[in-house]
Amino acid sequence: MSVYMREDLTRNEKIQHARRILNENKHSLDAWAILIQDAQDKKIAESREFYESLVTQFPTCGKFWKIYVESEIKGRNYEKVEKLFQRCLIKVLNIDLWKCYLNYVRDTKGISPSFREKMAQAYDFALEKIGMDVYAYTIWNDYVTFLKSVDAAGSYAENQKIAAVRKVYHKGIMIPMISVEILWKDYCAYEMGINPALGKSMIEGRSRDFLNVKRVTKELETLTRAVDKNNPCVSPVSPQSTDEVKQLAAWRKLIAWERSNPLKTEDIVLVTRRVILAYEQCLLCLGYHADLWYEACAYLEQTSRTFSERGDAHLTKRFLDEASALYERAIQTYMRSNMLIYFAYADFEEHRLNIDKARSIYNRLLDVNEANLKDPTLAYIQAMRFERRTDGIKSARTIFKRAREDSRVNHQIYVAAALMEYYCTKDNNIAFNIFNLGLKKYGQNVDYILAYIDYMTHLNEDHNARVLFERVLSVDNLIAKQSQLPLWNEFLKFESQVGDLLSIKKVEKRRLAIYSDLNELEFRETLLLIDRYKFLNLLPCSNDELKLLGYKDTVMRNSSSASVT
Amino acid sequence: MSVYMREDLTRNEKIQHARRILNENKHSLDAWAILIQDAQDKKIAESREFYESLVTQFPTCGKFWKIYVESEIKGRNYEKVEKLFQRCLIKVLNIDLWKCYLNYVRDTKGISPSFREKMAQAYDFALEKIGMDVYAYTIWNDYVTFLKSVDAAGSYAENQKIAAVRKVYHKGIMIPMISVEILWKDYCAYEMGINPALGKSMIEGRSRDFLNVKRVTKELETLTRAVDKNNPCVSPVSPQSTDEVKQLAAWRKLIAWERSNPLKTEDIVLVTRRVILAYEQCLLCLGYHADLWYEACAYLEQTSRTFSERGDAHLTKRFLDEASALYERAIQTYMRSNMLIYFAYADFEEHRLNIDKARSIYNRLLDVNEANLKDPTLAYIQAMRFERRTDGIKSARTIFKRAREDSRVNHQIYVAAALMEYYCTKDNNIAFNIFNLGLKKYGQNVDYILAYIDYMTHLNEDHNARVLFERVLSVDNLIAKQSQLPLWNEFLKFESQVGDLLSIKKVEKRRLAIYSDLNELEFRETLLLIDRYKFLNLLPCSNDELKLLGYKDTVMRNSSSASVT
Repeated sequence: MSVYMREDLTRNEKIQHARRILNENKHSLDAWAILIQDAQDKKIAESREFYESLVTQFPTCGKFWKIYVESEIKGRNYEKVEKLFQRCLIKVLNIDLWKCYLNYVRDTKGISPSFREKMAQAYDFALEKIGMDVYAYTIWNDYVTFLKSVDAAGSYAENQKIAAVRKVYHKGIMIPMISVEILWKDYCAYEMGINPALGKSMIEGRSRDFLNVKRVTKELETLTRAVDKNNPCVSPVSPQSTDEVKQLAAWRKLIAWERSNPLKTEDIVLVTRRVILAYEQCLLCLGYHADLWYEACAYLEQTSRTFSERGDAHLTKRFLDEASALYERAIQTYMRSNMLIYFAYADFEEHRLNIDKARSIYNRLLDVNEANLKDPTLAYIQAMRFERRTDGIKSARTIFKRAREDSRVNHQIYVAAALMEYYCTKDNNIAFNIFNLGLKKYGQNVDYILAYIDYMTHLNEDHNARVLFERVLSVDNLIAKQSQLPLWNEFLKFESQVGDLLSIKKVEKRRLAIYSDLNELEFRETLLLIDRYKFLNLLPCSNDELKLLGYKDTVMRNSSSASVT
Repeated sequence: MSVYMREDLTRNEKIQHARRILNENKHSLDAWAILIQDAQDKKIAESREFYESLVTQFPTCGKFWKIYVESEIKGRNYEKVEKLFQRCLIKVLNIDLWKCYLNYVRDTKGISPSFREKMAQAYDFALEKIGMDVYAYTIWNDYVTFLKSVDAAGSYAENQKIAAVRKVYHKGIMIPMISVEILWKDYCAYEMGINPALGKSMIEGRSRDFLNVKRVTKELETLTRAVDKNNPCVSPVSPQSTDEVKQLAAWRKLIAWERSNPLKTEDIVLVTRRVILAYEQCLLCLGYHADLWYEACAYLEQTSRTFSERGDAHLTKRFLDEASALYERAIQTYMRSNMLIYFAYADFEEHRLNIDKARSIYNRLLDVNEANLKDPTLAYIQAMRFERRTDGIKSARTIFKRAREDSRVNHQIYVAAALMEYYCTKDNNIAFNIFNLGLKKYGQNVDYILAYIDYMTHLNEDHNARVLFERVLSVDNLIAKQSQLPLWNEFLKFESQVGDLLSIKKVEKRRLAIYSDLNELEFRETLLLIDRYKFLNLLPCSNDELKLLGYKDTVMRNSSSASVT
């Protein structure tokens, strides 16, 4: 039984307990719930600090922002309310939050001389941002009611008013949302009330499209029922909770449905806006999922490509800019330490030839003061490759130099730099020098040595390869015997390839001696022999025989995961 | 409940059932047991055919040979008995079988004029072969009794007799075997009976060694109790039966103990003979275990090396010859299709410079008429390497040619031949030509192509590598899309290494299209992106994030096991 349900604890005890929990685990929603209830019972001045910690922890949770805002409204701190809205509205496309905003404007601005303009602006703003939400009906309806309520003196003003109302109706009835059929009936009644003859033809002209909207609404309703748009975003645990797995699946289904263009419209901008709204609302709840961010950005890029093929420079740029903004939002929020998204973002900018911007993205990732990364080696490698592509080998070398001076960096940077020289400048000697430079620092690092050996053996310089083997395996080099095993395996493979039987047997004997020193020789001689005779996937025994010999274990234990890319 | 135990079946029904079982599974010991019982109840003429099938199936099972022999003895077919002994005795060092042999000689040769000589020969022969068996006491004792019973007329003959008896005693009391202390007591009594003064000093001179033997006997008794030396040799099932696992462990313990020189003797020949007897007796029951064969041969080789270091050419050669004979026995019996043992045998002969013999071992393995191998590719590869080492590249090429004409051979032979040329003759062009030759035949074999690609990309010839990629991935090449995936992954890896962003993206797009055609694209774009950014063991996401993305699956599915040795 959850501690939060226990009847025997006093309210205060529960609150104390919840605070202790949160000190250890910022993601305990049960504990937050206790404290939220407590805050709501208090004066806003006492709970403001708590609310700030709440929206800091859950910056994309509409429900929490709304609770905060409502507490300020209750305290009549309208300036604060407006600052809060400025902080969250645009980023958090949550329908309840937006309805709260519109209610706030209506309730508090009534006395303002410019109320009508302000109110209309608020409605337009809301409908632009979130008018396609499946629960947006009340906003549309409220707007129409509001517009109808406006006094209009004279036929010009009356016509203006009718045009304004009609415009909102025309937009609203084309949106798949719950209760859209009520809006449709109101609209029909409205037109018939103005001019039955003209109205009838206008209605008829739109009824086919409306039937389509009605059909799509039904599907959307079903899909929407499965998602919880108020779920706070918590860093996923592994394995994922069943709840999160279900939510993810439901969102994916909804997004896939939007991508399938259920309205069957030819208006790509509309399809894209709907798809992106789905992604954005999904990311409010599942912002830790890198794939969702990437897919949304890739989708915008794809839309942009479509307009580029049509020669529409304006829309091409608009969607590229949107993609860029979404990437930016990702790395500023939940993807702060996710290299994948940084790389994709940088590639995106590189691709549209914003080389400086791409460079700055790598630099932000590598910034030691930001310290988003424990091990930035891969980031340096990608930055190096970026410079090689866009500015040439010298700039790439500068990155390599910078990496070497960064104490967080690991051995792979030497491998990458050496192979880059080999593959790109085709200069064996530089590659060789870099590998040797790395060996000074990572002479006991078996993965590093294996990468060097792989390079060396492929170079086909037997003498140098043997020198390298002897150097790293010499007693002076102090690699623990257990760790030496993969190196001996490589040495044996090498000699089996190029050596005479004596060299093969010599290496084999030395390898045996290591096993023997490790007290692992017993009954293993035959297993080690198998390694001498295997080639690619061919083994000198049948699978049954290998099992009988217990071969699998040996392979698993001695194989190294390293293989040069 | 086993069918063999069922009371409701008539004897005949049980026999019929057992025959049916054996038609399907030659290794059902229960079924054999039924038929053996039946055969024993019949006249030998009727069951001889069955016994032949029994010893054909279990050529090293002493118990079964003994049953066969005893049936012939019962039928007084002494010629047949002797032929049977000729077939089995030397190969099957089973104490009960040998005792049966000695009994047979004693019981049937009594009337022969040369009985005494024949009997003594038989005893000498038996004690030479199996006198060190833990159950050999009765043979030693019988021999002594037999020698004592010989009439000796005159003091010369009497002295001769005493010397003969004493010699057998002296040998016997130094052997750790059950009841050796009775032999010791008999010996003491015997010496005291002849000459108390001299006897006492002789006994004292041997008593310390005997105490050692007694101690060792105790250990041996315990170790022996765990092994069943009459177990028939059956081809192991996977997973091994608990019984076999236990037997194997018990034998290994016994062998390890023998190898530890428990007698603490400096007589290496004695230690080796004891160890090899243990191996041989073990192999009668566990002959399908390649590692036991190899270890036994390697042990003999090691003994030989010891004598070689001491400059004893005779013993050096003797143990090498023994090793060779043991290898020979292995490949003629249970190791008939085991490449590992053939390779080890050939290497062994190559090492002692019996090049022609080594060559003939490869040839026997490769002999199409023998057809021990379904896929002889690895055998050709090893033969090729052997020729390269011992006779040069031209002979190696002859093997490659022969392999190409063998329809059982697979693609790896081309890889091995090409790499051999590259690594040994250092001739890129020949290697290149071989790879292309193979491509004509294995142009749709992804493993082959991957090996070629690995070679090509390491050669650092970008243009040729791209030509190869395009060639194997062209629509004309008809590789199933599912199978193409690892090739696309390699192509992407290659371009990430050397290409510009456009080439990278182009390849990535084509790879995406394949996934899309396979209906596997959904939600996988991000997973595929990870492949673009990874380097060695560095990945652009944390382990938790990768799990969340389901990355592991993708790696598993698309990775290829091939990597060039």
